[in-house]
Amino acid sequence: MDTLSPALKSLSSKVQALELTPDGVRLLDQTALPNEVRYLTIRTAGEMADAIITMLVRGAPAIGIAGAYGVVLSARESQQKGLPFAEFKQQLLADVDRLSKTRPTAVNLFWALNAMQAVIDEPTDSSAKLLERLTAKSLQIHQDDWKACQAMGQHGATLVPKGAGIITHCNAGALATGGYGTALGVIRSAFANDPTIKVYADETRPRLQGARLTTWELVEDGIPVTLVSDNMSGSLMRDGKIQFVVVGADRITANGDTANKIGTYNLAIIAQAHQVPFYVAAPLSTIDLSLTTGQEIPIEERDASEISTINDELICAKGVDFYNPSFDVTPASYIAGIITEKGIARPPFQESLAKLFEA
Amino acid sequence: MDTLSPALKSLSSKVQALELTPDGVRLLDQTALPNEVRYLTIRTAGEMADAIITMLVRGAPAIGIAGAYGVVLSARESQQKGLPFAEFKQQLLADVDRLSKTRPTAVNLFWALNAMQAVIDEPTDSSAKLLERLTAKSLQIHQDDWKACQAMGQHGATLVPKGAGIITHCNAGALATGGYGTALGVIRSAFANDPTIKVYADETRPRLQGARLTTWELVEDGIPVTLVSDNMSGSLMRDGKIQFVVVGADRITANGDTANKIGTYNLAIIAQAHQVPFYVAAPLSTIDLSLTTGQEIPIEERDASEISTINDELICAKGVDFYNPSFDVTPASYIAGIITEKGIARPPFQESLAKLFEA
Repeated sequence: MDTLSPALKSLSSKVQALELTPDGVRLLDQTALPNEVRYLTIRTAGEMADAIITMLVRGAPAIGIAGAYGVVLSARESQQKGLPFAEFKQQLLADVDRLSKTRPTAVNLFWALNAMQAVIDEPTDSSAKLLERLTAKSLQIHQDDWKACQAMGQHGATLVPKGAGIITHCNAGALATGGYGTALGVIRSAFANDPTIKVYADETRPRLQGARLTTWELVEDGIPVTLVSDNMSGSLMRDGKIQFVVVGADRITANGDTANKIGTYNLAIIAQAHQVPFYVAAPLSTIDLSLTTGQEIPIEERDASEISTINDELICAKGVDFYNPSFDVTPASYIAGIITEKGIARPPFQESLAKLFEA
Repeated sequence: MDTLSPALKSLSSKVQALELTPDGVRLLDQTALPNEVRYLTIRTAGEMADAIITMLVRGAPAIGIAGAYGVVLSARESQQKGLPFAEFKQQLLADVDRLSKTRPTAVNLFWALNAMQAVIDEPTDSSAKLLERLTAKSLQIHQDDWKACQAMGQHGATLVPKGAGIITHCNAGALATGGYGTALGVIRSAFANDPTIKVYADETRPRLQGARLTTWELVEDGIPVTLVSDNMSGSLMRDGKIQFVVVGADRITANGDTANKIGTYNLAIIAQAHQVPFYVAAPLSTIDLSLTTGQEIPIEERDASEISTINDELICAKGVDFYNPSFDVTPASYIAGIITEKGIARPPFQESLAKLFEA
């Protein structure tokens, strides 16, 4: 029960960010890529919280799965210690709380932890039974995300013009999800249909996830990719090289406003100025109908060192101020459609997104 | 005669990119900043050509001055070798040609080399006299640029709203000119009038001139500066933090289209989407009335290693393709005004730019 079904695995990318194993959670260390392919075993909920904070694992859906697995690790830990059931449950709640405080913007984490919380809240009489149910739920979250990405890929690929130049930002790929990817899932499916598409990856400063992660996972899967600096999108579009933009999302509000990696908003504006359609690919777990507009989304500000240094070398003068929001919000008016596992939502999103949840 | 007047020096920034000395050209090595402040002495025209290609010296006006000084170095070299006058002139022409082939986009280089060529073409009867005239012309080009930057600063400062947030791209500062700077000259003058302005510097991938150079020279001169990634401008503007954009230029065509560092076009689009005025600051030597529109400007494409590595470490997968245009063209329609030493040209630029040359 601790592994995904072989059928699902065969459908996916070669790349897998995380996997629940009998020893813990096997995590591909995303801070070491592309120069080193290193797997770590995360054994406790506390280690998982740190792995999320330090971005060993990142990407909204993957963080959700990691959070769910973190709760399983908490249960395993307490069981090994032989904690009485009351303490076992108390520790679970403490670890859910701890995991929920790792990163504020991506809603998938809270969505997954809520799902795990619901399992904890069900009546159970033994630690063993609860651990079994939590394990099953976490694997289901992972498998559902995987299937959702496959479905997004199929829906999204229908939108891509023949031979299109496609640009994406950050990494919304197998590395950012349970496998296959959201934006890169669309690109994978499009490439399977039409290998003449041309993929451009924004390097995505400050952490360079586009350069470090997206190019790596596409090369692993044999999909040709051109790396560009974030500030080249205007030049590319003006030269007619881009016909389609697709990005992931960390949180989408009821009106369609979308928080995603810093620079997504810039890319959306550049796309609109060139009449290039801008799509967001995200599972329903990324959509937060409890928030009305993007202004309500908490935006994480990360450490200045992400901007001031690269590979531990200072790249600016001492005495400089910094501003390092990790995400920005793209207003719904820039978005041509939101590609989900249940189909493509079109503007006005207020209605189309709500409808997806009814179906 | 080999140095700038003390009066001009006192007006300027502490930072000086290049200076003609009896030994050669004293060059601040801009590839070593900000971690090392290292001066080199360039002694031959060939060394100067290499210094321009490898960007030890960069910035459109500074490249023009460096080119002019390179011609002086050619004359000094030939004089030291005791070449007969005919060979002396022949070598000058060969070196002018060599210097002209270093970088294609910034027109100031060709403008300065044309001015030096005109001196070579004047009737002269001795190497000594020609060397003297070339030296005088090169120093005049440097001093004129310095004065032009001061004038641009004064004109441009009148445009900056009280307490404005100002964003700039790349480095159009003292380091990029004969001193004081074009865009940073406007910022220096604005700051002298109103120290409550807030300056934001785009880091400017791939070569990070904003991070490495702009923050350094502003900190040297005591002007507070906040460093941001190139892809944060949308977020900053949406938050109401930016009221004014000013950038330099590498070449401006008769209709006002402006080639400048890659990412300038992105910034212009982002500014227009937020109704923030976007200004270009450049001396007349940057304006190329021989070209009708920006489509005619040759855009330099530089080595892929600028994108694939940072501090010699690979930041992407092996087997990736690259696209590395060093400049982009911002159409005139995005530009609120072009700040020159003769005043501010407003749209339609076809007329206003032509008028500047008549005055």
